[in-house]
Amino acid sequence: MSAIETLVASVPAPPTLFPASDPAPAGIPLAAWARAVRPSAIQEMMGLMGRPGIISFALGLPAPELFPVEAYLDATGRVLHGDRGALQYRPAFAPLREEVARLMERRGVHCTADQVFLTTAAQQGLALVTRLLLEPGAAVICDELVYMGFQQVVEPYRPRLLTVSSDLDTGIDVDAVEAHLRSGARPAFIYCVTDGHNPLGASVSLEKRERLVELARRYRVPILEDDAYGLLGFEDALPPLRALDDRWVLYVGSFSKVLAPGFRVGWVVAPPELMPLLGCAKDGLDIDTATFSQRVVAEYLAGGDFPRHLEVVRTEYRARRDLMLEMLARHFPAGTRWSVPRNGALIWAELPERLDAGALLGEALRADVAYVPGSAFAARGSSAGRNCLRLNFSFSAPALIREGMARLGEVFRAA
Amino acid sequence: MSAIETLVASVPAPPTLFPASDPAPAGIPLAAWARAVRPSAIQEMMGLMGRPGIISFALGLPAPELFPVEAYLDATGRVLHGDRGALQYRPAFAPLREEVARLMERRGVHCTADQVFLTTAAQQGLALVTRLLLEPGAAVICDELVYMGFQQVVEPYRPRLLTVSSDLDTGIDVDAVEAHLRSGARPAFIYCVTDGHNPLGASVSLEKRERLVELARRYRVPILEDDAYGLLGFEDALPPLRALDDRWVLYVGSFSKVLAPGFRVGWVVAPPELMPLLGCAKDGLDIDTATFSQRVVAEYLAGGDFPRHLEVVRTEYRARRDLMLEMLARHFPAGTRWSVPRNGALIWAELPERLDAGALLGEALRADVAYVPGSAFAARGSSAGRNCLRLNFSFSAPALIREGMARLGEVFRAA
Repeated sequence: MSAIETLVASVPAPPTLFPASDPAPAGIPLAAWARAVRPSAIQEMMGLMGRPGIISFALGLPAPELFPVEAYLDATGRVLHGDRGALQYRPAFAPLREEVARLMERRGVHCTADQVFLTTAAQQGLALVTRLLLEPGAAVICDELVYMGFQQVVEPYRPRLLTVSSDLDTGIDVDAVEAHLRSGARPAFIYCVTDGHNPLGASVSLEKRERLVELARRYRVPILEDDAYGLLGFEDALPPLRALDDRWVLYVGSFSKVLAPGFRVGWVVAPPELMPLLGCAKDGLDIDTATFSQRVVAEYLAGGDFPRHLEVVRTEYRARRDLMLEMLARHFPAGTRWSVPRNGALIWAELPERLDAGALLGEALRADVAYVPGSAFAARGSSAGRNCLRLNFSFSAPALIREGMARLGEVFRAA
Repeated sequence: MSAIETLVASVPAPPTLFPASDPAPAGIPLAAWARAVRPSAIQEMMGLMGRPGIISFALGLPAPELFPVEAYLDATGRVLHGDRGALQYRPAFAPLREEVARLMERRGVHCTADQVFLTTAAQQGLALVTRLLLEPGAAVICDELVYMGFQQVVEPYRPRLLTVSSDLDTGIDVDAVEAHLRSGARPAFIYCVTDGHNPLGASVSLEKRERLVELARRYRVPILEDDAYGLLGFEDALPPLRALDDRWVLYVGSFSKVLAPGFRVGWVVAPPELMPLLGCAKDGLDIDTATFSQRVVAEYLAGGDFPRHLEVVRTEYRARRDLMLEMLARHFPAGTRWSVPRNGALIWAELPERLDAGALLGEALRADVAYVPGSAFAARGSSAGRNCLRLNFSFSAPALIREGMARLGEVFRAA
């Protein structure tokens, strides 16, 4: 089978990687979660990205043509000529922690460098906080349509998932969060993507932000705030939850979307008392965030070009968002609804109820266009997202957005 | 208190980071392992390394003056000018997997690129295999004097540690491993550093290697082989366990000791059936090994200089090892025993029974010399290593090894 046929065959209901009748691939006894795991649709999509000619709205990739590679190369030269310690095991690079604290001011968050813990990008931030807070089998509150990487963080703990829905305009259903807490649930944390929600593209309204933080305080339940896209805000940025509470909100940020994913540099903002514990947890995962990356990123930021670069990225992504929204209105079937993201790289589209976005992916791929079917984001136990799809607008050049959306519209209108 | 006083006060019996009476730093409810965690002696040592004038035998750092930084800078230039995808989210870089497969041949291991899984250095290799195999509360077999980073990997699972001792000349006590297995224990895996043992500097004898692999097969218990120092072998390299069995041995390797730790690039060699599962586990931890690092390392290796560079590192480290062994014989108290490492960067010294290496660290630091007391490596529940210390010979220039060892000898002889 070709990669595409394999993918089509595996969507929307992929088998477990190893059938229950063979619980021990290669004979090796696995932990229970690993026996139950399903292949990651995202990883399978990654494999497809190399195919010539495909227009991909599937992955949340930044636009590589915007990477300031000459500036990175200059920074690398200064780093490697300046200090051989840049390639050594090292405590987190203090000037980078300070740069991050300054960047957080742009998000309305007041913190000091000693509240900034550097991580191997946002994904590790999620993994570290989970490692500190989540007991095996305990509960977490999360969206029923949730970032796949979050599920991959928590699944080894086999947690009870207390799910809530989200509104495309105002974000997470705070009433549902409160109902869980009032009924006595004491989850290890509430997972929340406040801006540029993955996969929904939604932002949480200011009123809901205030209520969420108030619930966290009242019930003494921490919030794990994933702000991987935060710095990309296109307009009227609202303060992240961390700006509203410096004790119950553990904030995760990243350079992946605004500089480049390939550095793997992100951060957690947390109370200083948690820093030694985050250090212990990180020692167990990878010891250091690559000092090579830390130094190059810090040197780049020190050069002062970042604010201008961020404006370039924002402007371009806003234009691509607007174009994709226009194409949705022009080409998609009547009755389709979608989010209008104020931030991030993703639009969520809900097709008319009768359409199954998973079943239609095969047609789309035959037309050389890729997306991720909504059901791929359904939390364990949920069947949400069947008629939905996630569309990325940051990666593809405008001409490809035009062409790909026209082809997709044709596939969906014909269905 | 100064950093040194803090360190001295915290060795050899550091308190938990948060006393039991305060289970919730910043009020945040933590998982049980995190409430019980002790600060890492290694992290505290890292903080001290910046102090001017200290001679450090404490950490397992490579010699930064041997890093081929010009070659890395050239490689970075070629990578960044060649392909902007080098900074993008990407599947593991296939040419690097092929280079690793070729390197493994040098260790006598026959594997193909599809058995190589790239990791964020060896530490993540340990974390990934542990994530796949270890159920919370299950058992593992490990040394009673064991790499601290291993304890930090497994502690969140609160495992039963079935410990065995190791001989400084012939390595792990295979009879003790067999006794655990015969008594019915079925650990998730046996953790084994076959060459350049951390902290003991020991290598496992060929006869023991063969018996270990035979036990793994007979009892169907995988071995997690940590070969982070493997490529550094000074003389008569023995085959790693993975060369003796390609099914029950999951092998972890790294570029940290032979190129530079700051790239954070390592690998796992495992049966191809486990690759998708390793991918799922890695998605949860950090998605990708930094593509920037992967590409620079691959480009450096493709340049063909690595074999010569490895020989330079080996020759220098062998000379530093020989010098440190000579200084041990000359300066340390009568009755001291030590390992003669065939590999790696570490020597283990056992002082006469009456001496407590933890209690004497304060004296040593006042003489501006640092080491790690042996008890820091004792597995949970063990009191091994009280009269012992771990000495690193790779980091310090020969003149500093001479001077530092003379001072240490003075401290210990006076005690």
